[in-house]
Amino acid sequence: MRGEGIYVLLLAIGGLALTLTSVAGLENGLARTPPMGWMPFERFRCLTDCVKFPRDCISERLFMRTADLLVSEGYAAAGYKYLIIDDCWMEKERNAITAELMADRERFPSGINHLSAYIHNKSLKFGLYHDIGRRTCMHLGPGAHGHYSIDAKTFASWSVDYVKLDGCYVDGIDLNTAYPAFGQALNRTGRPMVYSCSWPYYQNNPNFELIRKHCNLWRFADDIRDSTASIINTIFNYFKRQDNLTKHAAPGSWNDPDMLVLGNYHLSYDASRLQQAMWAVLAAPLIMSNDLQTVRPEIRALLQNRDIIEVDQDPLGIPGHCVLTSGNIQVWLRPVMPTNNIGAHSFAVAFANIGEHYECPLCPQTFRIILQNLGLSNQMGYVAYDLFDSKRQVGLFKPQDQFTIRINPSGVEFYKFKSEDIY
Amino acid sequence: MRGEGIYVLLLAIGGLALTLTSVAGLENGLARTPPMGWMPFERFRCLTDCVKFPRDCISERLFMRTADLLVSEGYAAAGYKYLIIDDCWMEKERNAITAELMADRERFPSGINHLSAYIHNKSLKFGLYHDIGRRTCMHLGPGAHGHYSIDAKTFASWSVDYVKLDGCYVDGIDLNTAYPAFGQALNRTGRPMVYSCSWPYYQNNPNFELIRKHCNLWRFADDIRDSTASIINTIFNYFKRQDNLTKHAAPGSWNDPDMLVLGNYHLSYDASRLQQAMWAVLAAPLIMSNDLQTVRPEIRALLQNRDIIEVDQDPLGIPGHCVLTSGNIQVWLRPVMPTNNIGAHSFAVAFANIGEHYECPLCPQTFRIILQNLGLSNQMGYVAYDLFDSKRQVGLFKPQDQFTIRINPSGVEFYKFKSEDIY
Repeated sequence: MRGEGIYVLLLAIGGLALTLTSVAGLENGLARTPPMGWMPFERFRCLTDCVKFPRDCISERLFMRTADLLVSEGYAAAGYKYLIIDDCWMEKERNAITAELMADRERFPSGINHLSAYIHNKSLKFGLYHDIGRRTCMHLGPGAHGHYSIDAKTFASWSVDYVKLDGCYVDGIDLNTAYPAFGQALNRTGRPMVYSCSWPYYQNNPNFELIRKHCNLWRFADDIRDSTASIINTIFNYFKRQDNLTKHAAPGSWNDPDMLVLGNYHLSYDASRLQQAMWAVLAAPLIMSNDLQTVRPEIRALLQNRDIIEVDQDPLGIPGHCVLTSGNIQVWLRPVMPTNNIGAHSFAVAFANIGEHYECPLCPQTFRIILQNLGLSNQMGYVAYDLFDSKRQVGLFKPQDQFTIRINPSGVEFYKFKSEDIY
Repeated sequence: MRGEGIYVLLLAIGGLALTLTSVAGLENGLARTPPMGWMPFERFRCLTDCVKFPRDCISERLFMRTADLLVSEGYAAAGYKYLIIDDCWMEKERNAITAELMADRERFPSGINHLSAYIHNKSLKFGLYHDIGRRTCMHLGPGAHGHYSIDAKTFASWSVDYVKLDGCYVDGIDLNTAYPAFGQALNRTGRPMVYSCSWPYYQNNPNFELIRKHCNLWRFADDIRDSTASIINTIFNYFKRQDNLTKHAAPGSWNDPDMLVLGNYHLSYDASRLQQAMWAVLAAPLIMSNDLQTVRPEIRALLQNRDIIEVDQDPLGIPGHCVLTSGNIQVWLRPVMPTNNIGAHSFAVAFANIGEHYECPLCPQTFRIILQNLGLSNQMGYVAYDLFDSKRQVGLFKPQDQFTIRINPSGVEFYKFKSEDIY
């Protein structure tokens, strides 16, 4: 790639910007870019019957198999490092003597420490689910209420790297004090743990300024499902609240639209592209929920697309926003590295076709735009790359030039516009 | 493959059976196996605006491009021979002097004879849409009412090989005499044309015995759409009426569940497998509706899967039927060649998972069956082949043996059980 020397210089500038913008966020030093990893819930739900569903039940076997596959199938090398156990891992009650949480003895016979070590030995990170209330959401395990300190210590003793804290069964509990308090308990252990909060999802008018001070990421929308409709709903949910959501995201603090569901059963190839591109443009965590053993090669290639992951993990950490809606088309724009020699950003631009075009609902829609109408104003222009096919370099475009694409129904085109130097 | 000598012998027996069962069908000698080809409607609808949609409009360009692609992409070699123009090809009115139908002059500037010759020069067959009533369904062109003879002659003069006759705008017209009359007009031209009738779709209690005497194939269900729900609805529609539908299918006369929509935008890979397998097990016409230029390689491989096409095109022409329902699983069984040395058929068996399994809606379901419970009773057993992966020969199974598979949600597993010889 051209301009590597400049890139290094500008990374330094980027690093400065990052320090300035994230000063109000949770300062545990973690999640400088959106976390990447794997979580079972969308795909494996709360399956506890290991006799009837030996391959699909929530058990140490599932997580050891997935740890192996994260490495052997190339996901870890692409950046997917966090293997996070979701709900349904606990015994129904705490230890009667110590009040500590316990993993289900039948499904985790080797114990959480053993599983944690297995995951760490693969150079992966280990995450665990918990709930701020009285029971976990699936009601199988005890919640953290009344036990913040002991639970944080238990997690630290298990070498947990990432905590997902849900918000079920919180009647009478003030989330605006409970979530910070649990976060402080985590901090007091001295072990750095990414802190993922479901906090705003359970509130009508969440105080994002407060949330970002205490959490590395936060869920703001419904649980994702394996369907195109669910992905599009999540995008629209973000769209409606984007002014409020985008301004609180920065290195160390991220909006979480929930898991990637690519590689399961119900998404078309176009819908799979749509989710991967949109999550990257939103600076969302890339946490897969699928059975890595049965992901087809072309979907694995999408999940491991290095150019798209680079957008998601851009060091500036500025989330994209929708700059233009035209019929069914939404254009989402994210400023990314590299900047040129006078500091103009490059841009990742997602053109999403998410509606039913009345004239031809089944036709790909042709969309034409003058780049400066999107805010791409660098007079030297931009070199455009198709992020789904980096071999296809599209050419140099000036702000006055028209950019024309054809976008499939429920699909997306995703380009990087690399800012050219002024001379 | 083993037993080729026997296969030849049994083809002769099969040929005998075929003559016996099809004696009541339309005897124009055509469609001895379900027609295979391409039709634009599901994908391109009635797009007539070639300025705004130059690539997608119904025009001779679309059909010449598709003819080229049928050959160059390997579809023709796999059996997809009929290129059929659906609605929206006509001028609004007949020729004022001769009363002949005319193709739209702007979108078909070279004329239908030129297009027909272009298609024939590629060793493909040429099909054309018409309507038995007063207007075509999209209301753009005149219907055949009052002009059967002249329209049949026009079609013959254009070297048409296949006529799709729709049933819109038929107020006051008796379909049970109109469809046979138009068929007779086709026959009188002396040109063999496959006769595809929408006849039963427009009736409450269609007389299939009559319909099969006059048509090579007939639509019985709603227009298909590019969605998993549409495919599953069509399968259930067939399922509910299968006793009536299966008994009228035979070489020369076929139930038509409408087009294959694989290769478009909204089907997952599993749903694409589902349609291809189910259409083959039902002995359905395999008429694609997609843009052949943008079908992805893995879907092209499904569409051109020779083992599945062989099931669809089986010379016995006995359609499959659902022999067993268990929760979400339907098991569909089609007797196919080869038969063994005492005349026992082989079977193509589709295991479809088309419902929401309440225990784990997102898990593949494990299904176990003793083969004789499906009617597979050949005491020497069957060699099982995975039709989606012919390299994977699964083994020899006796009637008392259990066969176990794992079927994805909205997915299918499809096996051939090849009947072994008795010695």
